[in-house]
Amino acid sequence: MGMTMSQKILAAHAGLDEVKAGQLINAQLDMVLGNDVTSPVAINVFEENGATAVFDNTKIAMIMDHFTPNKDIKAATLVKQTRSFANKYDIKNFMDVGMMGIEHALLPEKGLVGPGCLCIGADSHTCTYGALGAFSTGVGSTDMAAGMISGKAWFKVPSAIRFELVGKPQGYVSGKDVILHIIGMIGVDGALYKSMEFTGEGIQYLNMDDRLCIANMAIEAGAKNGIFPVDDITREYCTGRYQGTPVEYTADEDAVYDEVYTIDLSTIRPTVAFPHLPENTKTVDEIGENEVKIDQCVIGSCTNGRISDLRAAAEIFKGRKIAKGVRCIIIPGTQNIWLQAMHEGLFDIFVEAGAVVSTPTCGPCLGGHMGILAAGEKAVSTTNRNFVGRMGHVESEVYLASPAVAAASAVAGYIVDPEKVM
Amino acid sequence: MGMTMSQKILAAHAGLDEVKAGQLINAQLDMVLGNDVTSPVAINVFEENGATAVFDNTKIAMIMDHFTPNKDIKAATLVKQTRSFANKYDIKNFMDVGMMGIEHALLPEKGLVGPGCLCIGADSHTCTYGALGAFSTGVGSTDMAAGMISGKAWFKVPSAIRFELVGKPQGYVSGKDVILHIIGMIGVDGALYKSMEFTGEGIQYLNMDDRLCIANMAIEAGAKNGIFPVDDITREYCTGRYQGTPVEYTADEDAVYDEVYTIDLSTIRPTVAFPHLPENTKTVDEIGENEVKIDQCVIGSCTNGRISDLRAAAEIFKGRKIAKGVRCIIIPGTQNIWLQAMHEGLFDIFVEAGAVVSTPTCGPCLGGHMGILAAGEKAVSTTNRNFVGRMGHVESEVYLASPAVAAASAVAGYIVDPEKVM
Repeated sequence: MGMTMSQKILAAHAGLDEVKAGQLINAQLDMVLGNDVTSPVAINVFEENGATAVFDNTKIAMIMDHFTPNKDIKAATLVKQTRSFANKYDIKNFMDVGMMGIEHALLPEKGLVGPGCLCIGADSHTCTYGALGAFSTGVGSTDMAAGMISGKAWFKVPSAIRFELVGKPQGYVSGKDVILHIIGMIGVDGALYKSMEFTGEGIQYLNMDDRLCIANMAIEAGAKNGIFPVDDITREYCTGRYQGTPVEYTADEDAVYDEVYTIDLSTIRPTVAFPHLPENTKTVDEIGENEVKIDQCVIGSCTNGRISDLRAAAEIFKGRKIAKGVRCIIIPGTQNIWLQAMHEGLFDIFVEAGAVVSTPTCGPCLGGHMGILAAGEKAVSTTNRNFVGRMGHVESEVYLASPAVAAASAVAGYIVDPEKVM
Repeated sequence: MGMTMSQKILAAHAGLDEVKAGQLINAQLDMVLGNDVTSPVAINVFEENGATAVFDNTKIAMIMDHFTPNKDIKAATLVKQTRSFANKYDIKNFMDVGMMGIEHALLPEKGLVGPGCLCIGADSHTCTYGALGAFSTGVGSTDMAAGMISGKAWFKVPSAIRFELVGKPQGYVSGKDVILHIIGMIGVDGALYKSMEFTGEGIQYLNMDDRLCIANMAIEAGAKNGIFPVDDITREYCTGRYQGTPVEYTADEDAVYDEVYTIDLSTIRPTVAFPHLPENTKTVDEIGENEVKIDQCVIGSCTNGRISDLRAAAEIFKGRKIAKGVRCIIIPGTQNIWLQAMHEGLFDIFVEAGAVVSTPTCGPCLGGHMGILAAGEKAVSTTNRNFVGRMGHVESEVYLASPAVAAASAVAGYIVDPEKVM
């Protein structure tokens, strides 16, 4: 029986010729990731277990991104603990303020993950790197600790759902609309503990930023991982960037999938997830004018803080003003993206429209800082979760959307189809 | 008996020909200021007193700067309350995210304060505007509420200390070094409830940003206000900017001063205030190499977040790297300063050196957010106060310095004379 792409990567890293869905395997890791919230917990476990060495100081990344620059004493204390550990064990990829970036924007950019690698990260959205043809998944801090010590992790081999993407996205439709559409279709548990494998001729129309966005939100359908096959777009992205040796895995012809969905990208419309679940989707055509007035617009996060995202927002903002009463916060994913966006003139557009540009941080996405909502406030946001209280007060609301929809909504003052403000 | 410059402004606004030190007067206000921390308190007092109107909706400024973009739910709730009040009473100078700036950088820049005006603000550093030849002082939120209702405030007329500035500052000496030198000399209560009047031929060598910095820290010597005479530098700054009618007051020839100090600017050296008081000053020559290793460098605040400050820092950072282990956070004072610094290429220099550039905010200065210190950490900072716990943990330390000294120290990793890294 053939293996899926995800299964092949797992088999190779477990030293096995074949694995089957449901099988428990112990596999060698290429990258173990933590952030400023989860690393300290993993470090505590590491130390409580009497560990005195890490398996490989080049294969651990600790990215200080959630509450940095430190929002409060607690955040400062957690970062200090992590910094101290990183210094002690000479962790090469400890990234502090100034080397900053949101972990899932930074690791692909710095070439710390790439095709065929196996990565765990103590952060839900570690599934992002599937965009590069990697098997990558979020784990708890205890697994992170075990991974730092042993370089290995236990996995229950997932079954998979195949998404056959056909056609070309039209107008303002981006990767975010594709994944919101899919989550709306299958629900937040639609891929529970499964791989979401994205294939088909339609992927040629999805650039790397679109793919990173789609894989990033696989967890929002409950998936163990999301993954794309390696193609020329992947190869071009990884060339001169990926620090490892890329290995291209393809699903067997006779791989078995729990389900196969064909998604015609040409029919997808700009899509918004209403509170309080990513599955509560409506297309912009289903949302009335002035139906959802907004107080804040956030453009950024590990989902949509990349250069394509900022360009899409800038296209809308250019020559326009953000509506009175709307705060707009732009958060480039990394320092490099920040510089690139600045050099492309996007910051001029943002600031002239009335937005502020933040340092890279997860910030408001998880209610951390840099744009928290009060009771009764509503935000349109390019982030990945709209759970109750996710961006602040339990009586606030988050509407998930693409950068184009978010920017257009900031201009209109309510959620709107970008076509209507252009 | 003649009047000081400060007394003349008070007399004019009280409709009196003459006032004397110690006299209680009720004076007409040209501007009443609050921020996101103090405005809500003032609004509560306003409403508890049954007020139903403000004296003049063009003469009240509410600047959301301390904890914005909202750092948490509490901050969001305070801003929401202020926004709601501002909407209800059509407060023209309510400044939210996107119109942002640090209040004391924003008001001069937008021309809301100018020569001869009388301003109170529910923030200690309201004394900043004395740089423009205004009488401006910090008050409590109750006074802010009374000011919003009546357009008036009670003052006890202050006596004054005159600082006769002579000579020209040398090398990297800036306004910050001048005021730190003076506070080191007279102490944090050296000018308690008095006016600090800065005069003399030496002021020609202090640009407006230097003067704003000096007047800003008058409160750190306990002063009621700090003030500069109006000269061509003031006039040039205010032309096309100040929205009111400038009125130039000069001290009477026979004005009586409690003390007169002559300060030779040419002899001042780059100066640093050690923990935990602004009066604990040392010149850089008195600080040993590696004596004060730093974990963080903050360049910004109402004291030193203006374009000259950013240029001074960039001059140091250009072509250099921030030392390993040092986080450096640059915080332009306003959105306009942010844009100007970007256009001048300063952001390239900062980011390439390894710093991050924040949205305008008071942030770390008062331990708000955007760079809070953990126990045992040390920061060199261009802010105005180094009290225990001011930037975070009670066991952290803040060293106050100029932008040049702060930048040089970030490069060296310890507090250092800028000459030594150039």
